[in-house]
Amino acid sequence: MLFGVCYYPEHWPEERWGTDARMMKEAGMNVVRIGEFAWSKLEPREGEYDFSWLDRIIDLMTEHGIRVILGTPTATPPKWLMDKHPEIYMRDKFGHVRGFGNRRHYCYNSASYYPYITTIVEKLASRYASHPGVMAWQIDNEFGCNETTRCYCDACKLAFQVWLQGKYGDIDAMNERWGTVFWSQIYNEWLEVVLPANTPFPLHNPGLELDYRRFASDSVVKFQKLQIDLIKQYAPHQAVTHNMMGAFNEVDDFELSKELDIASWDNYPNLMFTRDVNPAIAAMQHDMTRGLKGRNFWVMEHQSGQPGGNIMFPTPRPGELRRWTYQSIAHGADGILYFRWRGCLFGAEQFWHAILQHDGKEGRKYNETKQVGEELKRVASLLEGSANASRAAMVRSFDNEWAFEIQPHIMNYSYMDHFTSYYQYFYDHGIGMDIISPNDDFTNYRLLVLSNFIMATDDMVERLYAFVEGGGSLVLDYRAGAKDWDNRMEPLTLPGKFADLLGITVEEYGVMYKDDTRRIKVEGHDEDYRGGKWFDVIVPRGAESMAVFDEDYYAGSPAVTKHVYGKGTAYYIGTELDSALRDLIFNEISICSKVAAHRGSGIRVPHGVELVSRVKVDKTLWFVINHTVKAADILLDGVYEDGLSGRKLAKGISVLEGNGVWMLLEIEAPSE
Amino acid sequence: MLFGVCYYPEHWPEERWGTDARMMKEAGMNVVRIGEFAWSKLEPREGEYDFSWLDRIIDLMTEHGIRVILGTPTATPPKWLMDKHPEIYMRDKFGHVRGFGNRRHYCYNSASYYPYITTIVEKLASRYASHPGVMAWQIDNEFGCNETTRCYCDACKLAFQVWLQGKYGDIDAMNERWGTVFWSQIYNEWLEVVLPANTPFPLHNPGLELDYRRFASDSVVKFQKLQIDLIKQYAPHQAVTHNMMGAFNEVDDFELSKELDIASWDNYPNLMFTRDVNPAIAAMQHDMTRGLKGRNFWVMEHQSGQPGGNIMFPTPRPGELRRWTYQSIAHGADGILYFRWRGCLFGAEQFWHAILQHDGKEGRKYNETKQVGEELKRVASLLEGSANASRAAMVRSFDNEWAFEIQPHIMNYSYMDHFTSYYQYFYDHGIGMDIISPNDDFTNYRLLVLSNFIMATDDMVERLYAFVEGGGSLVLDYRAGAKDWDNRMEPLTLPGKFADLLGITVEEYGVMYKDDTRRIKVEGHDEDYRGGKWFDVIVPRGAESMAVFDEDYYAGSPAVTKHVYGKGTAYYIGTELDSALRDLIFNEISICSKVAAHRGSGIRVPHGVELVSRVKVDKTLWFVINHTVKAADILLDGVYEDGLSGRKLAKGISVLEGNGVWMLLEIEAPSE
Amino acid sequence: MLFGVCYYPEHWPEERWGTDARMMKEAGMNVVRIGEFAWSKLEPREGEYDFSWLDRIIDLMTEHGIRVILGTPTATPPKWLMDKHPEIYMRDKFGHVRGFGNRRHYCYNSASYYPYITTIVEKLASRYASHPGVMAWQIDNEFGCNETTRCYCDACKLAFQVWLQGKYGDIDAMNERWGTVFWSQIYNEWLEVVLPANTPFPLHNPGLELDYRRFASDSVVKFQKLQIDLIKQYAPHQAVTHNMMGAFNEVDDFELSKELDIASWDNYPNLMFTRDVNPAIAAMQHDMTRGLKGRNFWVMEHQSGQPGGNIMFPTPRPGELRRWTYQSIAHGADGILYFRWRGCLFGAEQFWHAILQHDGKEGRKYNETKQVGEELKRVASLLEGSANASRAAMVRSFDNEWAFEIQPHIMNYSYMDHFTSYYQYFYDHGIGMDIISPNDDFTNYRLLVLSNFIMATDDMVERLYAFVEGGGSLVLDYRAGAKDWDNRMEPLTLPGKFADLLGITVEEYGVMYKDDTRRIKVEGHDEDYRGGKWFDVIVPRGAESMAVFDEDYYAGSPAVTKHVYGKGTAYYIGTELDSALRDLIFNEISICSKVAAHRGSGIRVPHGVELVSRVKVDKTLWFVINHTVKAADILLDGVYEDGLSGRKLAKGISVLEGNGVWMLLEIEAPSE
Repeated sequence: MLFGVCYYPEHWPEERWGTDARMMKEAGMNVVRIGEFAWSKLEPREGEYDFSWLDRIIDLMTEHGIRVILGTPTATPPKWLMDKHPEIYMRDKFGHVRGFGNRRHYCYNSASYYPYITTIVEKLASRYASHPGVMAWQIDNEFGCNETTRCYCDACKLAFQVWLQGKYGDIDAMNERWGTVFWSQIYNEWLEVVLPANTPFPLHNPGLELDYRRFASDSVVKFQKLQIDLIKQYAPHQAVTHNMMGAFNEVDDFELSKELDIASWDNYPNLMFTRDVNPAIAAMQHDMTRGLKGRNFWVMEHQSGQPGGNIMFPTPRPGELRRWTYQSIAHGADGILYFRWRGCLFGAEQFWHAILQHDGKEGRKYNETKQVGEELKRVASLLEGSANASRAAMVRSFDNEWAFEIQPHIMNYSYMDHFTSYYQYFYDHGIGMDIISPNDDFTNYRLLVLSNFIMATDDMVERLYAFVEGGGSLVLDYRAGAKDWDNRMEPLTLPGKFADLLGITVEEYGVMYKDDTRRIKVEGHDEDYRGGKWFDVIVPRGAESMAVFDEDYYAGSPAVTKHVYGKGTAYYIGTELDSALRDLIFNEISICSKVAAHRGSGIRVPHGVELVSRVKVDKTLWFVINHTVKAADILLDGVYEDGLSGRKLAKGISVLEGNGVWMLLEIEAPSE
Repeated sequence: MLFGVCYYPEHWPEERWGTDARMMKEAGMNVVRIGEFAWSKLEPREGEYDFSWLDRIIDLMTEHGIRVILGTPTATPPKWLMDKHPEIYMRDKFGHVRGFGNRRHYCYNSASYYPYITTIVEKLASRYASHPGVMAWQIDNEFGCNETTRCYCDACKLAFQVWLQGKYGDIDAMNERWGTVFWSQIYNEWLEVVLPANTPFPLHNPGLELDYRRFASDSVVKFQKLQIDLIKQYAPHQAVTHNMMGAFNEVDDFELSKELDIASWDNYPNLMFTRDVNPAIAAMQHDMTRGLKGRNFWVMEHQSGQPGGNIMFPTPRPGELRRWTYQSIAHGADGILYFRWRGCLFGAEQFWHAILQHDGKEGRKYNETKQVGEELKRVASLLEGSANASRAAMVRSFDNEWAFEIQPHIMNYSYMDHFTSYYQYFYDHGIGMDIISPNDDFTNYRLLVLSNFIMATDDMVERLYAFVEGGGSLVLDYRAGAKDWDNRMEPLTLPGKFADLLGITVEEYGVMYKDDTRRIKVEGHDEDYRGGKWFDVIVPRGAESMAVFDEDYYAGSPAVTKHVYGKGTAYYIGTELDSALRDLIFNEISICSKVAAHRGSGIRVPHGVELVSRVKVDKTLWFVINHTVKAADILLDGVYEDGLSGRKLAKGISVLEGNGVWMLLEIEAPSE
Repeated sequence: MLFGVCYYPEHWPEERWGTDARMMKEAGMNVVRIGEFAWSKLEPREGEYDFSWLDRIIDLMTEHGIRVILGTPTATPPKWLMDKHPEIYMRDKFGHVRGFGNRRHYCYNSASYYPYITTIVEKLASRYASHPGVMAWQIDNEFGCNETTRCYCDACKLAFQVWLQGKYGDIDAMNERWGTVFWSQIYNEWLEVVLPANTPFPLHNPGLELDYRRFASDSVVKFQKLQIDLIKQYAPHQAVTHNMMGAFNEVDDFELSKELDIASWDNYPNLMFTRDVNPAIAAMQHDMTRGLKGRNFWVMEHQSGQPGGNIMFPTPRPGELRRWTYQSIAHGADGILYFRWRGCLFGAEQFWHAILQHDGKEGRKYNETKQVGEELKRVASLLEGSANASRAAMVRSFDNEWAFEIQPHIMNYSYMDHFTSYYQYFYDHGIGMDIISPNDDFTNYRLLVLSNFIMATDDMVERLYAFVEGGGSLVLDYRAGAKDWDNRMEPLTLPGKFADLLGITVEEYGVMYKDDTRRIKVEGHDEDYRGGKWFDVIVPRGAESMAVFDEDYYAGSPAVTKHVYGKGTAYYIGTELDSALRDLIFNEISICSKVAAHRGSGIRVPHGVELVSRVKVDKTLWFVINHTVKAADILLDGVYEDGLSGRKLAKGISVLEGNGVWMLLEIEAPSE
């Protein structure tokens, strides 16, 4: 278990370093990330290098038993470099330069930048490849954050044209698949193709829009690969990672992770300014990150204080750092690095708070971290080698998310909010979920949920048919099958290629106004269920109805259907279910598909308390996490030990304090 | 009666064309519009033409008895043309190019564009002038839509300077009439004059602002005239039209229509995303379009499905297409072309729904259209030669609307909303209204309503005095007479030149805060009437008071006045009346001016049902349109036949179903 | 007492001038401001001057006994000048030119502009230096209004680099104090330094941001000084002023006023579109302006009608002009010039209403002004030499306000709103306040209030310690001491350098969500007091608690503390107090610091009536101003005479009408 902190020695007088290292060690820390924004200090002027300070801090950390993850500093090219090559700056849709003074002020496709990257990364890799204290590398920092994925400069335009040529070969093929005949947009030459920049009205060809997003994502992947290759050349034994951003969607993280040794992400559970944080959001992003490489991951930046640029976000209450840390671990984190050690005295993030306040003294958050450090030492061997084990998966498709970003269908509609609403069900019911790519193998799962799967390749369609035929349960919902992978409408009656699998046709459809809903009836239930946002007018062609619209001109037509296909079952949801109906439908789906694992664990938790497990060959570690500030009654059907405190918990009700966490090991099995 | 659809053969495989033509014919269609965005297909490269496909589809349609309206493709110049002449792109207020990728990416004043237009239009006109299947031409498409009327490029700046020189002759005259002495803005040379582009604060000289709007509108008119002249040279026998946009106000449609043979507009009754569509809005726009040339018109694009760019708007319910169609006809449409035949599989409007869904199969909307087609065959000879016959008119002044756009006076104030609130009264009370230009002849009307007529020429003032003197009833309201035609304030006590006609002075005035209102008393009425948005402090000088403010420091002064002048009467309204008071006042005005025609028709309709008539020499066609989803009781005082169904309706109450329409012919006269 | 109006003779035919002058005289006016936007009329073409019309109007005014304040016309350089030197235009953050067509279209650092200014100002100054009718000069007009302080052109970039070199000398010092090591922003050369313009994310280095604001403010001061020096060279006997804008914060008015003979500001009490105007806002801005030079001031533009650009603001009700006028005088105005004489018939401000309506006739507002003119003649000798005399002061720090503008900490937080909430207490309780600079002498005051004093120089800290030690009462609140004067965080436990003075440490802190509050208890009070926006977790180190948080994890820790230090007392407020708690706390502070003067005046006013005094050597003038529309009962404990009406007011209750004003002189002393 890696346990540590992000540290910026270049921000502090060297005489303080020793104190910091000692305090870290006393808090049980064994790793630091350093260097990822330090280019100015490493190469103050072109070709003038100074690695001596970096040598000294790495040595110092190593002496204290703290290993180092080194960041490459390419997120912040220095001013001397930018002044020599101003063409490196990104440009926005209007052609404005996105200039110097913040960070990430570079274009991924700028040829001028590549030699500088090569040099600085080679210098670092060659110097520290053999340092025993350097365990891993982080490439750049948060690719794409603050809308820096998509650039509209001339270099990007040319690179996009080349990318399209590579993809389509023939420009007529591109015209055909994009449908540029619409509004007279046929391109005769690759060099004629535009970026989706400023036009009289902001509505570009959907095929071009989607390809541009794919291209921009690929540009980042290519940019990262240059650095990975350089590092691996010198340091093949040191791991390479990048700190991704969970639900951030501008870069396809499945692609970005392929060449990485381990996936990482930056976890700020309360970065949003909201009164009530939904802990499912962090849980989901952990699961997303775990799904990237199908194995455990690191949290490279883990919130330790109130974040803040010019505005401050909420201050973590006592117990929150510890609670968030165990949630991370419960979902598969094998490394926790807090962001950051101490509040910086200057710079754009001087309000981004840390373990230590600006005064550098031990305080509440330091003490809480220290407690976690001690607990982790106690449970390290238990955690070692354990992992989550899910039989259900949600499919996250960046391409589909982009298609909805380009065309949300519904005012203020969010693909991710909808995705989250399904995830929420599983979170609330303690059902472990994997979040996987549509290109991943489906065969190990019992249940697959694909939300808003408007585009699908033939291969995906075939594998989904095969999955259900072989006994799997599949959930599809509105808009499934409406488009092909080029973001074109299918000339088929909906749900298009999924019609046979789902046993329905969708004759009509439409949006609902704002918060409008329509009543939905479920046989045997008197509740006033509701569908919102969208309606499909479904005609069953073999499927049976699970819920029926009870209002408007499509009253009587199904809202949810179920179709036995082969050995499995395919479900279709033709509206946005309210949470009560969602729970009712998914309860049935979960039971039928046999994924409702945790509920049979012998541990019963009330609402607000999360139950999640990591499994080792021989045993299960049950994390019970109270996300509320109030004590909660936990009903135990067996006898357990809390690994963190060593305390034994008897059968019956035990009280878990507000913000409290247990890591339970079964001593005596539940009765059932 | 033209009945048909907008069709894009270039979007579909040629082997489908036959099916489409057959299905159209079976639906009773006799016209299609084609070609208006097809430049890329007609001239794929400069000077390389391919009209063969257009020949084939026109021939095919002709064979099916379907006539063709050909669009000129100038709304979407191809990429090869734009790459050769990038100076054709419009520019925004900041100088940003409004680039390629949507449509309407050209400046009306770009000299580079004119030769290309000339060539493509001549090619088309010369080729199809003698084709028996081609009945008419549409110039370009929706001039100005998506804010493409006003451009800020250098060509526009120069053209504006030339336009000003043409208007004022002498620059001192322009300085005087604009009042450029204010803030030291005197221009010494024409070439010094600026466009109302980006400044430190967005507040330009009001005279310059208004002239720029006039210039921009004139630029469109001039642009259109080039094409009309070319077509008329080859095809003087084929009608020329343009699809305008109802209440859209950037181009003066009175001017734009002058050279057209027939006016057209695009009618999307539910393009707005609102829960309750007000059917008066479409009615008003029909009346506006009829007023352009003072005769019947075409609906060139008639909504047939949910519209949608990236967001979808509401799906029409069963019966809505039919209902909308008859409303259009009732207000004077002699041509209905649905937009569009089939949902496009690609492009920026792939979500803009059509008669056929993307799957191309017959469905609910096709069947509804077909029903209308059959009914129209039945009533064609009745409709032939019939027209609306109004004795009341509202005056729509683009110049005044622009003056209020430049200076709305009141936060979020809309000239058109206010205009609509008066129109609503007449709509609700079944009183047929014409909507005319202030330059039109007033003498045929009994009642004229001029809302917010802040600017007037001397000629208009004189004709209004003459109109009232001769026995007409005139309604003016707040801000009347405050400015001259140059958008300058009059140095007169308000209502300026209208003071004698109205018999009042307005000593003071002001806005009301947001939703604030002031109580208004009407003698003999106990209701709590209200005025909002604005107050005038009126002193009668011969006029009598119809309603009096009962609150604030101007309590006791009139809110509405009435002044007998010559044989007629001039009314003045000094605030925004609430709907109850508006109805009370206009009831009296309508009765006194003898325009309340329909109420004496023998047909009584409840709220939500529209009653409107077209008149032939010998008979009246009464359209009864139920705009609600509920059945309505219609009280008939005579015996009628519904021309659409052939059903006879006895005296007394008959039930009109939700979304239902009758076209009633009197068989036995009402008792009165 | 100066009493007059802003007049634009160049807007009106010369034959009208005589009428205007006569009407002004009849209204008791003795001063006009003219010429400040007249460059086009004075120099229609480069080098062609015409001062004849200005001569004539000055002579005419002089003949009528009306003195002239001449404006320099530099706010509106003519078009011929801008066309010759387009580099003079300001540029925005994206590099867009902020072009011609409004006003203030120039950059303060444009070298091209300086020769033109020099010439026109010298021409004016030399011509009118000896004219007996010209009493004073106004430089330019409202520096910075409509966001024209900060420019992003190349001239500004260079000027900023030079300014920085002047400030820091050594670029390493600048890097150190800004902390440019953060995100690799170290500058090697002055010419590398950027303006805080467009970046990928709008978050610049806080040190750079603050220095840029200081630089921009200094640029204005420098720009003004050029003109002052020119005028003083010719006309050292004529006063020089500038019309500032009260709470407007882009220019440091303390610096801007240093070289002025008298401070002026433009007072529009109801420029905001709000239902209920808070009269404390105008009062505060009067006090701010009086504080600039520590003596009486002029209101150069005083609202006389509804303002309006494209939107109109509320029309003043009868009595409001008079009431506002006396409020201005009560707070120290020795000059009142209404804006403006007559509604302009043209130009961007044709809706900005005036004493006369557009028709130029005497009306309600003229008559009200005339009444004031008559009253002022009566009380002129009394007012002569009188001034406000406060023992309490609030410290307004532009630097601190800028620091909060750059980093508001809290969503939608406003330094000025918070400042105002403290001012409101003193306003409501009739306690005269000065508003002074942190560089001013503190020693004459009994109470100092410093809100959000996040930055302080060592000198300020020392003087505050000395102030309290010597017996003063000091109020500091949250964020005090958190930063040094470079906008860097202090590496000290909060409240940093103020810790000893306040006798506390602040261990933690944070924001509260939106309208969230936390309960606060005060011993001996049962009220449910509340703190909002921010919380400090305070540990007393000698201070005593005045109020204690009663909620959340910091329940029990003080919200407000009091610390006796030397002979004085230092208070600290660790949250945003609700108004009830604010009043409770400040009541105690006011009583203890002996500043609650007016309450002992013998005049008792209800809520909504303002009580404020000007003091002469031997007597006090009590202004009693009824800011409501309802009559108010005023309880008098002595016998008074109302100087305005000459009416004698007996002991007991007298009724002051709505919008009414008294200027009371004590005839018989109050009983106490």
